[in-house]
Amino acid sequence: MRSFLLRVPKGAELLSFLKEFARKNEIKKAAVFAIGSFEDATLAYYDLETRRYEPIEVKERTELVSLSGNISLMDGEPFPHVHAVLSRRDGSTVGGHLMRASVFMVELYVTEVPGPLLERKPWEHGLKVWELEG
Amino acid sequence: MRSFLLRVPKGAELLSFLKEFARKNEIKKAAVFAIGSFEDATLAYYDLETRRYEPIEVKERTELVSLSGNISLMDGEPFPHVHAVLSRRDGSTVGGHLMRASVFMVELYVTEVPGPLLERKPWEHGLKVWELEG
Amino acid sequence: MRSFLLRVPKGAELLSFLKEFARKNEIKKAAVFAIGSFEDATLAYYDLETRRYEPIEVKERTELVSLSGNISLMDGEPFPHVHAVLSRRDGSTVGGHLMRASVFMVELYVTEVPGPLLERKPWEHGLKVWELEG
Repeated sequence: MRSFLLRVPKGAELLSFLKEFARKNEIKKAAVFAIGSFEDATLAYYDLETRRYEPIEVKERTELVSLSGNISLMDGEPFPHVHAVLSRRDGSTVGGHLMRASVFMVELYVTEVPGPLLERKPWEHGLKVWELEG
Repeated sequence: MRSFLLRVPKGAELLSFLKEFARKNEIKKAAVFAIGSFEDATLAYYDLETRRYEPIEVKERTELVSLSGNISLMDGEPFPHVHAVLSRRDGSTVGGHLMRASVFMVELYVTEVPGPLLERKPWEHGLKVWELEG
Repeated sequence: MRSFLLRVPKGAELLSFLKEFARKNEIKKAAVFAIGSFEDATLAYYDLETRRYEPIEVKERTELVSLSGNISLMDGEPFPHVHAVLSRRDGSTVGGHLMRASVFMVELYVTEVPGPLLERKPWEHGLKVWELEG
């Protein structure tokens, strides 16, 4: 099982970068973490009733104080699912499901997980999730 | 050393699930991470004077934006110690020691750590911690 | 590749401890995570214009609800880069780049990463970062 520690280029969109990084390195099942700083970002809260990610726009440079999630398969392609906490100049925080982020400087840690591959399949409320084990 | 990436069943209480997962898989020393969404949860702040976890009730569906911690031994059994940050619809966050959480959808990453086992023993202020090394 | 799970002694300054731990164990490239509790801490927001970390003083005991980052090399020595989220008695959170923290009780997870070593070199705005890959 491989692990990677690397810097994401300035200006990259983080989720697109992650998808491409996974595709290039044939990463199909991994845990993902990062710290750094975003130019701006869109987080979200999932509304079960409307079945939509309700966007939370963060239109300022923030510290990326926590990013965690994973890479698994959706429609046969590597798919990142990532949540994040951002902090502003005064230390106040905003968190949610990461929809999009413009990178200023991000340090990314990706570590593969062994065993059967995980594929996202339609579930409740319009979400796509993994089968339960066992 | 083994690593696991899996979904926790809807309706499960997360800490009970973690204990049972560790027991079933004979995991005695591991790091633990997760993202997802909770139906509701009880976080806490430890009060050194009263020696009690002062509960912080989160009675709404939240995004689980950060969960990290570990599994070690207490009274010979696998014991999870976990802290979490939750986010609400507007992106505002609440954090603390995780006491209880009802899972909506949680993706869990557990990765074993080699070396001597760690056992929690009584320490200051009513807390149970690991021996220092060396 | 080695992994470590350990308690940091009460009263230690976390970043100094991490540097010394890395030096003693010859850790040059690793991911770092922790939970626990701080006596007090200084977080920061990096101001690109003044090229300074603007300090955010947290002068109370907090729960360390998320700490993540890495160890790489700067001037040939192991250097920790760490971001953190702290929570107060009421669950409110404060986050940023970790500049200094006095440990009450911290449980630290360090996991080495294989491959070419990473060295921090001067970049934009007074920051020191890793070379991009490829």
